[in-house]
Amino acid sequence: MKIAIWQTPPDDSIADSLERLASAVREAAEAHAQLLMSPEMFIGGYNIGAAATSANSRSYEAVRQQVCDLAAAHRIALVVGLPTPHPILPYNSCIAVDETGVERALYHKTHLYGEVDRAQFTAGPALSPIVQLGGWRVGLAICYDIEFPEVARDLAMRGADLIVAPTANMEPFESVATRLVPARAEENAVYLAYCNYRGREGVFNYNGLSCICGPDGNDVVRAGKSDTGLFYATLDRAALLDARTKQFHLRDRRSDLYGKLE
Amino acid sequence: MKIAIWQTPPDDSIADSLERLASAVREAAEAHAQLLMSPEMFIGGYNIGAAATSANSRSYEAVRQQVCDLAAAHRIALVVGLPTPHPILPYNSCIAVDETGVERALYHKTHLYGEVDRAQFTAGPALSPIVQLGGWRVGLAICYDIEFPEVARDLAMRGADLIVAPTANMEPFESVATRLVPARAEENAVYLAYCNYRGREGVFNYNGLSCICGPDGNDVVRAGKSDTGLFYATLDRAALLDARTKQFHLRDRRSDLYGKLE
Repeated sequence: MKIAIWQTPPDDSIADSLERLASAVREAAEAHAQLLMSPEMFIGGYNIGAAATSANSRSYEAVRQQVCDLAAAHRIALVVGLPTPHPILPYNSCIAVDETGVERALYHKTHLYGEVDRAQFTAGPALSPIVQLGGWRVGLAICYDIEFPEVARDLAMRGADLIVAPTANMEPFESVATRLVPARAEENAVYLAYCNYRGREGVFNYNGLSCICGPDGNDVVRAGKSDTGLFYATLDRAALLDARTKQFHLRDRRSDLYGKLE
Repeated sequence: MKIAIWQTPPDDSIADSLERLASAVREAAEAHAQLLMSPEMFIGGYNIGAAATSANSRSYEAVRQQVCDLAAAHRIALVVGLPTPHPILPYNSCIAVDETGVERALYHKTHLYGEVDRAQFTAGPALSPIVQLGGWRVGLAICYDIEFPEVARDLAMRGADLIVAPTANMEPFESVATRLVPARAEENAVYLAYCNYRGREGVFNYNGLSCICGPDGNDVVRAGKSDTGLFYATLDRAALLDARTKQFHLRDRRSDLYGKLE
Protein backbone atom coordinates (compact mmCIF):
# COMPACT_ATOMS: atom_id res chain seq x y z
CA MET A 1 0.00 0.00 0.00
CA LYS A 2 1.35 3.41 -0.97
CA ILE A 3 0.75 6.00 1.75
CA ALA A 4 0.92 9.78 1.53
CA ILE A 5 1.60 11.75 4.72
CA TRP A 6 0.76 15.39 4.38
CA GLN A 7 3.00 17.75 6.35
CA THR A 8 1.29 21.11 6.12
CA PRO A 9 0.83 24.34 8.04
CA PRO A 10 -2.34 24.41 10.17
CA ASP A 11 -5.47 26.18 8.97
CA ASP A 12 -8.14 27.74 11.17
CA SER A 13 -10.93 27.84 8.59
CA ILE A 14 -13.08 24.78 7.97
CA ALA A 15 -13.80 25.84 4.40
CA ASP A 16 -10.13 26.47 3.63
CA SER A 17 -9.11 23.22 5.37
CA LEU A 18 -11.49 21.25 3.19
CA GLU A 19 -10.36 23.02 0.04
CA ARG A 20 -6.70 22.37 0.81
CA LEU A 21 -7.50 18.79 1.74
CA ALA A 22 -9.23 18.31 -1.61
CA SER A 23 -6.14 19.59 -3.39
CA ALA A 24 -3.87 17.23 -1.44
CA VAL A 25 -6.20 14.31 -2.13
CA ARG A 26 -6.08 15.00 -5.86
CA GLU A 27 -2.29 15.15 -5.80
CA ALA A 28 -1.98 11.95 -3.76
CA ALA A 29 -4.46 10.10 -5.96
CA GLU A 30 -2.58 11.15 -9.08
CA ALA A 31 0.55 9.71 -7.49
CA HIS A 32 -1.39 6.46 -6.99
CA ALA A 33 -1.34 6.64 -3.21
CA GLN A 34 -3.97 4.44 -1.59
CA LEU A 35 -4.10 6.29 1.73
CA LEU A 36 -3.62 9.95 2.59
CA MET A 37 -3.37 11.18 6.18
CA SER A 38 -3.49 14.68 7.67
CA PRO A 39 -2.10 16.06 10.95
CA GLU A 40 -4.18 16.14 14.15
CA MET A 41 -7.33 18.26 14.09
CA PHE A 42 -6.58 19.43 10.57
CA ILE A 43 -10.15 20.50 9.83
CA GLY A 44 -10.45 23.93 11.44
CA GLY A 45 -7.19 23.83 13.40
CA TYR A 46 -5.89 22.51 16.70
CA ASN A 47 -4.65 25.28 18.99
CA ILE A 48 -7.62 27.58 18.43
CA GLY A 49 -9.30 27.68 21.85
CA ALA A 50 -12.28 25.90 23.35
CA ALA A 51 -14.96 28.16 21.88
CA ALA A 52 -13.75 27.82 18.30
CA THR A 53 -13.19 24.09 18.67
CA SER A 54 -16.67 23.58 20.06
CA ALA A 55 -18.18 25.65 17.28
CA ASN A 56 -16.23 23.67 14.68
CA SER A 57 -17.41 20.38 16.14
CA ARG A 58 -20.97 21.26 15.20
CA SER A 59 -20.00 20.99 11.52
CA TYR A 60 -18.96 17.37 12.00
CA GLU A 61 -21.73 15.70 10.01
CA ALA A 62 -21.24 17.99 7.01
CA VAL A 63 -17.46 17.72 7.16
CA ARG A 64 -17.57 13.95 7.40
CA GLN A 65 -19.79 13.77 4.35
CA GLN A 66 -17.35 15.88 2.36
CA VAL A 67 -14.39 13.77 3.46
CA CYS A 68 -16.24 10.58 2.50
CA ASP A 69 -17.18 12.10 -0.87
CA LEU A 70 -13.56 13.09 -1.51
CA ALA A 71 -12.35 9.57 -0.75
CA ALA A 72 -14.94 7.99 -3.04
CA ALA A 73 -14.36 10.48 -5.85
CA HIS A 74 -10.62 9.82 -5.89
CA ARG A 75 -10.68 6.16 -4.82
CA ILE A 76 -8.29 6.78 -1.94
CA ALA A 77 -8.57 6.02 1.77
CA LEU A 78 -8.28 9.00 4.12
CA VAL A 79 -7.42 9.54 7.76
CA VAL A 80 -8.30 13.10 8.73
CA GLY A 81 -8.20 14.88 12.07
CA LEU A 82 -11.25 16.91 13.14
CA PRO A 83 -13.34 17.81 16.19
CA THR A 84 -16.47 15.81 16.93
CA PRO A 85 -19.33 16.85 19.22
CA HIS A 86 -19.68 16.02 22.93
CA PRO A 87 -22.09 17.64 25.43
CA ILE A 88 -19.26 19.05 27.59
CA LEU A 89 -16.24 19.63 25.34
CA PRO A 90 -15.74 18.09 21.89
CA TYR A 91 -13.56 15.11 21.20
CA ASN A 92 -10.20 15.44 19.44
CA SER A 93 -10.92 12.87 16.75
CA CYS A 94 -9.89 11.40 13.48
CA ILE A 95 -11.92 9.51 10.93
CA ALA A 96 -10.73 6.68 8.76
CA VAL A 97 -12.60 6.47 5.47
CA ASP A 98 -11.98 3.72 2.95
CA GLU A 99 -11.50 4.24 -0.78
CA THR A 100 -15.22 3.67 -1.42
CA GLY A 101 -16.13 6.56 0.86
CA VAL A 102 -17.31 4.44 3.80
CA GLU A 103 -16.29 5.60 7.27
CA ARG A 104 -14.53 2.62 8.86
CA ALA A 105 -13.49 4.19 12.17
CA LEU A 106 -14.06 7.28 14.25
CA TYR A 107 -11.45 7.49 17.00
CA HIS A 108 -11.32 9.99 19.86
CA LYS A 109 -7.92 10.87 21.37
CA THR A 110 -7.67 9.05 24.69
CA HIS A 111 -4.57 10.67 26.22
CA LEU A 112 -5.03 14.42 26.60
CA TYR A 113 -1.85 16.47 26.52
CA GLY A 114 -1.48 19.35 28.95
CA GLU A 115 -3.65 22.45 29.05
CA VAL A 116 -4.09 22.73 25.30
CA ASP A 117 -5.98 19.44 25.26
CA ARG A 118 -7.63 19.60 28.67
CA ALA A 119 -9.09 23.05 28.01
CA GLN A 120 -10.54 22.06 24.65
CA PHE A 121 -11.41 18.37 24.64
CA THR A 122 -13.08 15.45 26.30
CA ALA A 123 -10.88 12.33 26.52
CA GLY A 124 -12.00 9.43 24.38
CA PRO A 125 -13.53 6.39 26.09
CA ALA A 126 -11.69 3.60 24.23
CA LEU A 127 -8.63 2.82 22.17
CA SER A 128 -9.03 2.55 18.41
CA PRO A 129 -10.68 -0.37 16.71
CA ILE A 130 -8.63 -2.26 14.11
CA VAL A 131 -10.04 -1.60 10.66
CA GLN A 132 -9.19 -2.57 7.09
CA LEU A 133 -7.79 0.11 4.79
CA GLY A 134 -6.23 -0.81 1.46
CA GLY A 135 -6.08 -4.44 2.56
CA TRP A 136 -4.06 -3.60 5.70
CA ARG A 137 -5.13 -3.89 9.33
CA VAL A 138 -4.94 -0.37 10.70
CA GLY A 139 -5.16 1.06 14.22
CA LEU A 140 -5.37 4.76 15.02
CA ALA A 141 -3.67 6.91 17.64
CA ILE A 142 -3.51 10.68 18.00
CA CYS A 143 -0.37 12.59 19.01
CA TYR A 144 0.26 12.12 22.77
CA ASP A 145 -1.41 8.69 22.59
CA ILE A 146 1.59 7.26 20.75
CA GLU A 147 4.01 8.33 23.49
CA PHE A 148 2.43 5.63 25.67
CA PRO A 149 3.85 2.22 24.83
CA GLU A 150 0.62 0.68 26.12
CA VAL A 151 -1.35 2.13 23.19
CA ALA A 152 0.75 0.77 20.36
CA ARG A 153 1.12 -2.54 22.21
CA ASP A 154 -2.63 -2.89 22.58
CA LEU A 155 -3.21 -2.10 18.89
CA ALA A 156 -0.51 -4.56 17.82
CA MET A 157 -1.86 -7.29 20.07
CA ARG A 158 -5.25 -6.82 18.48
CA GLY A 159 -3.72 -7.34 15.05
CA ALA A 160 -2.69 -3.94 13.69
CA ASP A 161 -0.02 -4.10 10.97
CA LEU A 162 -0.04 -0.32 10.56
CA ILE A 163 -0.63 2.41 13.14
CA VAL A 164 -1.75 5.74 11.71
CA ALA A 165 -1.03 8.64 14.07
CA PRO A 166 -1.99 12.22 13.18
CA THR A 167 -0.15 14.65 15.43
CA ALA A 168 0.43 18.31 16.30
CA ASN A 169 3.88 18.06 17.85
CA MET A 170 5.74 21.25 18.68
CA GLU A 171 9.21 22.35 19.68
CA PRO A 172 11.08 21.21 21.73
CA PHE A 173 9.59 17.69 21.59
CA GLU A 174 11.53 16.39 18.58
CA SER A 175 12.36 13.20 20.47
CA VAL A 176 8.77 12.03 20.12
CA ALA A 177 9.19 11.92 16.35
CA THR A 178 12.75 10.64 16.28
CA ARG A 179 12.92 8.30 19.29
CA LEU A 180 9.53 7.27 20.68
CA VAL A 181 7.70 6.79 17.37
CA PRO A 182 10.48 4.60 15.90
CA ALA A 183 10.61 2.65 19.19
CA ARG A 184 6.85 1.95 18.98
CA ALA A 185 7.29 0.55 15.47
CA GLU A 186 10.27 -1.62 16.43
CA GLU A 187 9.00 -2.99 19.74
CA ASN A 188 5.74 -4.09 18.08
CA ALA A 189 7.06 -4.96 14.60
CA VAL A 190 4.47 -2.72 12.91
CA TYR A 191 4.52 0.10 10.40
CA LEU A 192 3.81 3.47 11.98
CA ALA A 193 2.78 6.57 10.00
CA TYR A 194 3.13 9.81 11.95
CA CYS A 195 1.93 13.02 10.29
CA ASN A 196 2.71 16.41 11.83
CA TYR A 197 2.23 20.08 11.04
CA ARG A 198 4.97 22.51 10.25
CA GLY A 199 4.88 26.23 11.06
CA ARG A 200 3.24 28.29 13.78
CA GLU A 201 -0.20 28.13 15.39
CA GLY A 202 -0.58 30.53 18.32
CA VAL A 203 2.29 29.91 20.73
CA PHE A 204 3.21 26.58 19.15
CA ASN A 205 5.97 26.14 16.63
CA TYR A 206 5.31 22.76 15.02
CA ASN A 207 8.41 20.81 14.19
CA GLY A 208 7.48 18.60 11.25
CA LEU A 209 9.59 15.41 11.16
CA SER A 210 6.59 13.44 9.90
CA CYS A 211 7.60 9.89 9.13
CA ILE A 212 6.71 6.38 8.23
CA CYS A 213 8.75 3.92 10.27
CA GLY A 214 9.14 0.31 9.24
CA PRO A 215 8.62 -2.69 11.52
CA ASP A 216 12.37 -2.68 12.30
CA GLY A 217 12.01 0.87 13.64
CA ASN A 218 13.96 2.48 10.83
CA ASP A 219 12.61 5.39 8.78
CA VAL A 220 11.06 4.49 5.45
CA VAL A 221 10.42 8.17 4.80
CA ARG A 222 11.08 11.22 6.97
CA ALA A 223 10.19 14.87 6.35
CA GLY A 224 12.38 17.70 7.61
CA LYS A 225 11.31 20.13 10.32
CA SER A 226 10.23 22.78 7.84
CA ASP A 227 9.16 20.78 4.80
CA THR A 228 5.69 21.18 3.34
CA GLY A 229 3.93 18.69 1.12
CA LEU A 230 3.18 15.05 0.56
CA PHE A 231 5.69 12.39 1.57
CA TYR A 232 5.20 8.90 0.23
CA ALA A 233 6.16 5.42 1.29
CA THR A 234 5.02 2.03 0.12
CA LEU A 235 4.32 -0.54 2.81
CA ASP A 236 5.87 -3.90 2.06
CA ARG A 237 4.16 -6.98 3.42
CA ALA A 238 7.33 -9.01 2.88
CA ALA A 239 9.26 -6.58 5.10
CA LEU A 240 6.58 -6.92 7.75
CA LEU A 241 6.73 -10.69 7.68
CA ASP A 242 10.53 -10.63 7.66
CA ALA A 243 10.61 -8.42 10.76
CA ARG A 244 8.32 -10.88 12.48
CA THR A 245 10.81 -13.70 11.88
CA LYS A 246 13.37 -11.67 13.87
CA GLN A 247 11.43 -9.65 16.44
CA PHE A 248 9.32 -11.71 18.86
CA HIS A 249 8.30 -9.18 21.47
CA LEU A 250 4.59 -9.90 21.18
CA ARG A 251 5.21 -13.64 21.59
CA ASP A 252 7.83 -13.25 24.33
CA ARG A 253 5.86 -10.89 26.59
CA ARG A 254 5.39 -12.14 30.16
CA SER A 255 1.86 -10.95 30.75
CA ASP A 256 1.81 -13.10 33.89
CA LEU A 257 4.25 -10.59 35.45
CA TYR A 258 2.68 -7.29 34.46
CA GLY A 259 -0.13 -7.11 36.99
CA LYS A 260 1.14 -3.85 38.40
CA LEU A 261 0.46 -2.08 35.11
CA GLU A 262 -3.29 -2.11 35.64
CA MET B 1 25.37 9.24 42.76
CA LYS B 2 28.38 8.58 40.53
CA ILE B 3 28.01 5.37 38.53
CA ALA B 4 30.65 3.36 36.70
CA ILE B 5 29.56 1.14 33.82
CA TRP B 6 32.17 -1.39 32.87
CA GLN B 7 32.30 -2.24 29.17
CA THR B 8 34.62 -5.22 28.95
CA PRO B 9 35.28 -8.35 26.91
CA PRO B 10 33.60 -11.46 28.30
CA ASP B 11 35.55 -13.98 30.36
CA ASP B 12 34.82 -17.70 30.65
CA SER B 13 36.74 -18.36 33.87
CA ILE B 14 35.12 -17.66 37.22
CA ALA B 15 38.47 -17.04 38.87
CA ASP B 16 39.59 -14.65 36.15
CA SER B 17 36.19 -12.91 36.15
CA LEU B 18 36.48 -12.27 39.86
CA GLU B 19 40.05 -11.07 39.58
CA ARG B 20 39.17 -8.67 36.78
CA LEU B 21 36.09 -7.53 38.68
CA ALA B 22 38.25 -6.77 41.72
CA SER B 23 40.54 -4.66 39.57
CA ALA B 24 37.59 -2.72 38.10
CA VAL B 25 36.13 -2.21 41.58
CA ARG B 26 39.39 -0.75 42.82
CA GLU B 27 39.58 1.62 39.86
CA ALA B 28 35.96 2.72 40.24
CA ALA B 29 36.32 3.24 43.99
CA GLU B 30 39.43 5.33 43.47
CA ALA B 31 37.41 7.47 41.07
CA HIS B 32 34.82 7.88 43.86
CA ALA B 33 32.09 6.00 42.03
CA GLN B 34 29.32 4.79 44.35
CA LEU B 35 28.03 2.03 42.08
CA LEU B 36 29.80 -0.21 39.57
CA MET B 37 27.91 -2.47 37.20
CA SER B 38 29.06 -5.32 34.94
CA PRO B 39 27.54 -6.79 31.76
CA GLU B 40 25.09 -9.72 31.86
CA MET B 41 26.43 -13.00 33.26
CA PHE B 42 29.89 -11.52 33.72
CA ILE B 43 31.02 -14.12 36.24
CA GLY B 44 32.04 -17.09 34.09
CA GLY B 45 30.59 -15.84 30.80
CA TYR B 46 27.29 -15.80 28.96
CA ASN B 47 27.42 -17.72 25.69
CA ILE B 48 29.26 -20.73 27.07
CA GLY B 49 26.68 -23.52 26.76
CA ALA B 50 24.27 -25.15 29.19
CA ALA B 51 26.77 -27.53 30.80
CA ALA B 52 29.29 -24.82 31.66
CA THR B 53 26.58 -22.44 32.85
CA SER B 54 25.07 -25.10 35.09
CA ALA B 55 28.49 -25.97 36.50
CA ASN B 56 29.22 -22.28 37.13
CA SER B 57 25.91 -21.80 38.93
CA ARG B 58 27.08 -24.22 41.62
CA SER B 59 29.70 -21.66 42.66
CA TYR B 60 27.01 -19.10 43.39
CA GLU B 61 27.32 -18.96 47.18
CA ALA B 62 31.09 -18.57 47.07
CA VAL B 63 30.93 -15.99 44.26
CA ARG B 64 28.29 -13.99 46.05
CA GLN B 65 30.41 -13.87 49.19
CA GLN B 66 33.37 -12.56 47.21
CA VAL B 67 31.25 -9.91 45.49
CA CYS B 68 29.84 -8.79 48.86
CA ASP B 69 33.31 -8.69 50.34
CA LEU B 70 34.59 -6.60 47.43
CA ALA B 71 31.75 -4.11 47.86
CA ALA B 72 32.36 -3.77 51.59
CA ALA B 73 36.14 -3.52 51.23
CA HIS B 74 35.87 -0.67 48.74
CA ARG B 75 32.66 0.92 50.04
CA ILE B 76 30.98 0.76 46.66
CA ALA B 77 27.66 -0.74 45.56
CA LEU B 78 27.87 -3.44 42.87
CA VAL B 79 25.48 -4.92 40.32
CA VAL B 80 27.06 -8.04 38.86
CA GLY B 81 25.68 -10.62 36.43
CA LEU B 82 26.11 -14.31 37.28
CA PRO B 83 24.33 -17.68 37.06
CA THR B 84 22.36 -18.92 40.05
CA PRO B 85 21.21 -22.49 40.67
CA HIS B 86 17.87 -24.00 39.68
CA PRO B 87 16.94 -27.72 39.61
CA ILE B 88 16.34 -27.72 35.83
CA LEU B 89 18.52 -25.00 34.31
CA PRO B 90 20.14 -22.13 36.20
CA TYR B 91 18.78 -18.62 36.28
CA ASN B 92 20.44 -15.79 34.37
CA SER B 93 20.75 -13.46 37.35
CA CYS B 94 22.31 -10.35 38.73
CA ILE B 95 22.91 -9.37 42.31
CA ALA B 96 22.75 -5.88 43.72
CA VAL B 97 25.03 -5.42 46.73
CA ASP B 98 25.16 -2.19 48.70
CA GLU B 99 28.34 -0.41 49.79
CA THR B 100 28.31 -2.20 53.14
CA GLY B 101 28.44 -5.58 51.42
CA VAL B 102 24.80 -6.51 52.01
CA GLU B 103 22.97 -8.19 49.12
CA ARG B 104 19.88 -6.06 48.51
CA ALA B 105 18.44 -7.87 45.49
CA LEU B 106 18.87 -11.04 43.51
CA TYR B 107 17.03 -10.76 40.19
CA HIS B 108 16.52 -13.52 37.62
CA LYS B 109 16.06 -12.53 33.96
CA THR B 110 12.38 -12.89 33.14
CA HIS B 111 12.39 -12.55 29.33
CA LEU B 112 14.54 -15.23 27.73
CA TYR B 113 16.06 -14.32 24.38
CA GLY B 114 16.13 -16.92 21.63
CA GLU B 115 17.99 -20.19 21.76
CA VAL B 116 21.01 -18.86 23.64
CA ASP B 117 18.82 -18.16 26.66
CA ARG B 118 16.29 -20.95 26.29
CA ALA B 119 19.00 -23.61 26.04
CA GLN B 120 20.84 -22.37 29.13
CA PHE B 121 18.40 -20.78 31.54
CA THR B 122 15.15 -20.96 33.45
CA ALA B 123 13.04 -17.79 33.19
CA GLY B 124 12.70 -15.78 36.38
CA PRO B 125 9.36 -15.83 38.21
CA ALA B 126 9.01 -12.10 38.99
CA LEU B 127 10.17 -8.65 37.97
CA SER B 128 12.81 -6.96 40.08
CA PRO B 129 12.12 -5.51 43.50
CA ILE B 130 12.92 -1.84 44.02
CA VAL B 131 15.91 -1.48 46.33
CA GLN B 132 18.00 1.35 47.74
CA LEU B 133 21.55 1.79 46.43
CA GLY B 134 23.51 4.94 47.20
CA GLY B 135 20.30 6.63 48.32
CA TRP B 136 18.58 5.96 44.98
CA ARG B 137 15.60 3.70 44.30
CA VAL B 138 16.87 1.11 41.86
CA GLY B 139 15.15 -1.55 39.76
CA LEU B 140 16.95 -4.25 37.79
CA ALA B 141 16.43 -5.64 34.31
CA ILE B 142 18.65 -7.92 32.24
CA CYS B 143 19.24 -7.47 28.50
CA TYR B 144 16.12 -8.58 26.55
CA ASP B 145 13.94 -7.58 29.52
CA ILE B 146 14.50 -3.91 28.77
CA GLU B 147 13.22 -4.24 25.21
CA PHE B 148 9.76 -4.74 26.72
CA PRO B 149 8.20 -1.41 27.65
CA GLU B 150 6.11 -3.23 30.23
CA VAL B 151 9.20 -3.98 32.34
CA ALA B 152 10.52 -0.45 32.67
CA ARG B 153 6.97 0.85 33.16
CA ASP B 154 6.33 -1.57 35.98
CA LEU B 155 9.61 -0.66 37.71
CA ALA B 156 8.91 3.08 37.32
CA MET B 157 5.37 2.70 38.64
CA ARG B 158 6.77 0.98 41.69
CA GLY B 159 9.08 3.92 42.31
CA ALA B 160 12.35 3.26 40.52
CA ASP B 161 14.39 6.38 39.79
CA LEU B 162 17.17 4.35 38.19
CA ILE B 163 17.00 1.14 36.18
CA VAL B 164 20.22 -0.87 36.07
CA ALA B 165 20.36 -3.23 33.10
CA PRO B 166 23.34 -5.52 32.50
CA THR B 167 23.30 -6.82 28.94
CA ALA B 168 25.05 -9.00 26.38
CA ASN B 169 23.85 -7.34 23.19
CA MET B 170 25.37 -8.38 19.90
CA GLU B 171 25.47 -7.25 16.30
CA PRO B 172 23.23 -6.33 14.52
CA PHE B 173 20.99 -5.17 17.38
CA GLU B 174 22.47 -1.70 17.88
CA SER B 175 18.98 -0.19 17.92
CA VAL B 176 18.35 -1.69 21.35
CA ALA B 177 21.14 0.45 22.79
CA THR B 178 20.49 3.57 20.72
CA ARG B 179 16.68 3.61 20.38
CA LEU B 180 14.85 1.33 22.81
CA VAL B 181 16.97 1.99 25.90
CA PRO B 182 16.74 5.80 25.51
CA ALA B 183 12.99 5.46 24.87
CA ARG B 184 12.54 3.51 28.13
CA ALA B 185 14.29 6.29 30.04
CA GLU B 186 12.25 9.06 28.40
CA GLU B 187 8.82 7.45 28.53
CA ASN B 188 9.24 6.74 32.25
CA ALA B 189 11.34 9.78 33.22
CA VAL B 190 13.98 7.60 34.88
CA TYR B 191 17.73 7.17 34.62
CA LEU B 192 18.72 3.98 32.84
CA ALA B 193 22.20 2.43 33.03
CA TYR B 194 22.89 -0.19 30.34
CA CYS B 195 26.19 -2.05 30.47
CA ASN B 196 27.27 -4.28 27.57
CA TYR B 197 30.26 -6.35 26.53
CA ARG B 198 32.55 -5.61 23.65
CA GLY B 199 34.36 -8.23 21.59
CA ARG B 200 33.58 -11.82 20.63
CA GLU B 201 32.16 -14.73 22.58
CA GLY B 202 31.50 -17.79 20.42
CA VAL B 203 29.38 -16.72 17.46
CA PHE B 204 28.42 -13.40 19.04
CA ASN B 205 30.13 -10.12 18.31
CA TYR B 206 29.11 -7.81 21.14
CA ASN B 207 28.56 -4.24 20.10
CA GLY B 208 29.31 -2.14 23.17
CA LEU B 209 27.36 1.14 23.15
CA SER B 210 26.91 0.94 26.91
CA CYS B 211 25.21 4.05 28.19
CA ILE B 212 23.55 5.95 30.96
CA CYS B 213 20.47 7.75 29.66
CA GLY B 214 18.91 10.63 31.55
CA PRO B 215 15.21 10.94 32.34
CA ASP B 216 14.75 13.03 29.17
CA GLY B 217 16.06 10.08 27.14
CA ASN B 218 19.31 11.75 26.16
CA ASP B 219 22.69 10.13 26.71
CA VAL B 220 24.57 11.23 29.81
CA VAL B 221 27.44 8.97 28.82
CA ARG B 222 27.85 6.56 25.91
CA ALA B 223 30.67 4.16 25.10
CA GLY B 224 31.62 3.33 21.53
CA LYS B 225 31.16 -0.09 19.97
CA SER B 226 34.75 -1.16 20.64
CA ASP B 227 35.68 0.77 23.77
CA THR B 228 36.91 -1.06 26.84
CA GLY B 229 36.91 0.32 30.36
CA LEU B 230 34.90 2.22 32.93
CA PHE B 231 32.50 4.94 31.85
CA TYR B 232 31.20 7.30 34.48
CA ALA B 233 28.16 9.47 34.93
CA THR B 234 26.78 11.27 37.95
CA LEU B 235 23.04 11.02 38.48
CA ASP B 236 21.47 14.38 39.25
CA ARG B 237 18.37 14.41 41.41
CA ALA B 238 17.55 17.93 40.23
CA ALA B 239 17.53 16.72 36.61
CA LEU B 240 15.21 13.89 37.60
CA LEU B 241 12.79 16.24 39.32
CA ASP B 242 13.00 18.70 36.43
CA ALA B 243 12.10 15.98 33.93
CA ARG B 244 9.10 15.10 36.06
CA THR B 245 7.79 18.65 35.79
CA LYS B 246 7.71 18.19 32.00
CA GLN B 247 7.02 14.51 31.36
CA PHE B 248 3.79 13.17 32.85
CA HIS B 249 3.43 9.78 31.24
CA LEU B 250 3.05 7.91 34.52
CA ARG B 251 0.31 10.31 35.62
CA ASP B 252 -1.40 10.49 32.24
CA ARG B 253 -1.66 6.74 31.61
CA ARG B 254 -5.18 5.47 30.95
CA SER B 255 -4.97 2.16 32.79
CA ASP B 256 -8.75 1.90 32.43
CA LEU B 257 -8.20 1.30 28.70
CA TYR B 258 -5.34 -1.20 28.74
CA GLY B 259 -7.24 -4.34 29.64
CA LYS B 260 -6.12 -6.13 26.50
CA LEU B 261 -2.51 -6.02 27.64
CA GLU B 262 -3.09 -8.71 30.25
